[in-house]
Amino acid sequence: MIGPFEHVTLGQRVLFGSGKAADHLAAEVSRCDARRVLLIASERDERLVQRVTADVEVAARCSEVRPHVPVESAERARKIAADVDADLLVSIGGGSATGLAKAVALTTGVPIVAMPTTYAGSEATNVWGLTEQSRKTTGIDDRVLPRTVIYDAALTLSLPPELSVASGCNALAHCVDSMWAPHTDPIDQVLAAEGIRELAAGLRAVHADPADLAGRERMVYGAYLAAVAFASAGSGLHHKICHVLGGAYDLPHAATHTALLPHVLGFNGPHAPEACARIAAALISDDAVTGVFELYADIGASAALRDVGFDEQAIPEAARLVLPVVPPGNPRPVVEQDLVGLLTAAWKGPDR
Amino acid sequence: MIGPFEHVTLGQRVLFGSGKAADHLAAEVSRCDARRVLLIASERDERLVQRVTADVEVAARCSEVRPHVPVESAERARKIAADVDADLLVSIGGGSATGLAKAVALTTGVPIVAMPTTYAGSEATNVWGLTEQSRKTTGIDDRVLPRTVIYDAALTLSLPPELSVASGCNALAHCVDSMWAPHTDPIDQVLAAEGIRELAAGLRAVHADPADLAGRERMVYGAYLAAVAFASAGSGLHHKICHVLGGAYDLPHAATHTALLPHVLGFNGPHAPEACARIAAALISDDAVTGVFELYADIGASAALRDVGFDEQAIPEAARLVLPVVPPGNPRPVVEQDLVGLLTAAWKGPDR
Repeated sequence: MIGPFEHVTLGQRVLFGSGKAADHLAAEVSRCDARRVLLIASERDERLVQRVTADVEVAARCSEVRPHVPVESAERARKIAADVDADLLVSIGGGSATGLAKAVALTTGVPIVAMPTTYAGSEATNVWGLTEQSRKTTGIDDRVLPRTVIYDAALTLSLPPELSVASGCNALAHCVDSMWAPHTDPIDQVLAAEGIRELAAGLRAVHADPADLAGRERMVYGAYLAAVAFASAGSGLHHKICHVLGGAYDLPHAATHTALLPHVLGFNGPHAPEACARIAAALISDDAVTGVFELYADIGASAALRDVGFDEQAIPEAARLVLPVVPPGNPRPVVEQDLVGLLTAAWKGPDR
Repeated sequence: MIGPFEHVTLGQRVLFGSGKAADHLAAEVSRCDARRVLLIASERDERLVQRVTADVEVAARCSEVRPHVPVESAERARKIAADVDADLLVSIGGGSATGLAKAVALTTGVPIVAMPTTYAGSEATNVWGLTEQSRKTTGIDDRVLPRTVIYDAALTLSLPPELSVASGCNALAHCVDSMWAPHTDPIDQVLAAEGIRELAAGLRAVHADPADLAGRERMVYGAYLAAVAFASAGSGLHHKICHVLGGAYDLPHAATHTALLPHVLGFNGPHAPEACARIAAALISDDAVTGVFELYADIGASAALRDVGFDEQAIPEAARLVLPVVPPGNPRPVVEQDLVGLLTAAWKGPDR
């Protein structure tokens, strides 16, 4: 039987083309009939930004792109938007640049054209986040969903190999967790499965040759599918655990996702046979967990939390912190001792 | 390489649940805060309509549901909408009911909640159609895209087996043609492939037992995916030929699609190996055309245009009429003699 389910498709235009970023951006600004563009992009990406905005008239620029969007940065960006009476926000960069544009859109309603340079996926969701005194608030609002996303895989060529692997595995985790997250539905699952297929192929290609544009395209496309699925399905067990570990022990975001993923898959898998069959097929493996370990071996990714700085002594406390946030409807019922076992296996990693 | 492509995702809420139509409709009317509902539904479906609208206050009802939406019917429905100052259109029925609601939305902007009772798919597209003096005009406008679709497979249980097969094969044709239509992209293709998988399984189940609710669910879900893919990809060679045959020789819509489909697939297939591999995999067959013929054999569908009343003598003329509307970018270049060959094979059917 299918459902019952509720699926909300977020209306959005996606322009995808390697080497076409500048043309697509100029065409989109013109299509929106925008006269006062506020450009949001870090100075780190200056050469890239100059290149892709060459044919666009920019009214103002905000370069204060910080991780997790501090409220003060958002306020300053909103002020610039008001000062120039911006009628279009153009964000170029990773999740932090997109996030800052979303913060402006949230209070002003000015539409966003997003041009991602990583595999973060924020550009395909209606989720915003703001940080005040190191407390992060997140929310959902359709005003922050970029109206148009311009994907150009060539913009991700400069992402260093290690960061590419971490960012790609983070996208992979969006796909896997979408299979059993609280609001998952068959549409999410088919997009997530395709995302896994593309990300796995892209990660292998980019690990072998970071300049492989076809591999970069598969990663960009896979990360987009991952974000669409994840935005609809919500956070599953994997993301809830990562959120707790990240917040309580200050672990690196993408590497923590990478290390934990196969262990959550191993834990939930036997209780989610259809999801596992889809994941295994997408990984071209007989078994989902084996498929992830094989992928990690090929791309040099670690599946051990001890490699990302997590202390074994913290496992009992972490298990206690995770228990209350286990998502309703997780395919496998979870008690505290299960989490101790899961985290112990994840700390240790495979075959040690 | 992926792309370049442009994909527009149409924002829409989908509520899917067997036996939940009445509850979902009442909840949706309440969520939209609608006070003056205009119900659009044929009197043919009276018992079903009474049942699913039991908990909804209806301000007015329009029952003048005709195929291809005659302009006069649209005008009368618009007048009723104006008379009661309708703030929500609720359509219940097949493509004709949805089409009439779209005609009202086109000029009034009143949002639609659509509840389909067939596998037509119009509810998931922003395409409208109107007929004046037997000339059909179609267009695209986001105002006609239903805001919410309520799918309840139980509402399709009363669709007779033969009509179910024809309507399901029509949806299958949406999927196959989406693989190479002018605006096709990888997102359309993954949705279309999943649609083929669901429709093939659903068609077999419903042919074996028209009361098989799980099979009906797969058909409903597959038809939804087909419509989403088709709305984005546009009409490919198959639909262009069907349009000409339907218009010039007054052939039955769904049966013509059914008969022609494997022949267009056989024609384009060798020039679209990736699409064919996807179609074959979705049909669980080594070969796409074989897979369709096997499906047809199982569900008693005819793959011969002579079975739907097409005259062999008309083939040369039909080929001449089709040639100018062959879509740009069809995977296989097409000359008139190709169309004569294709139509001859389609007229004859397999193995005769």
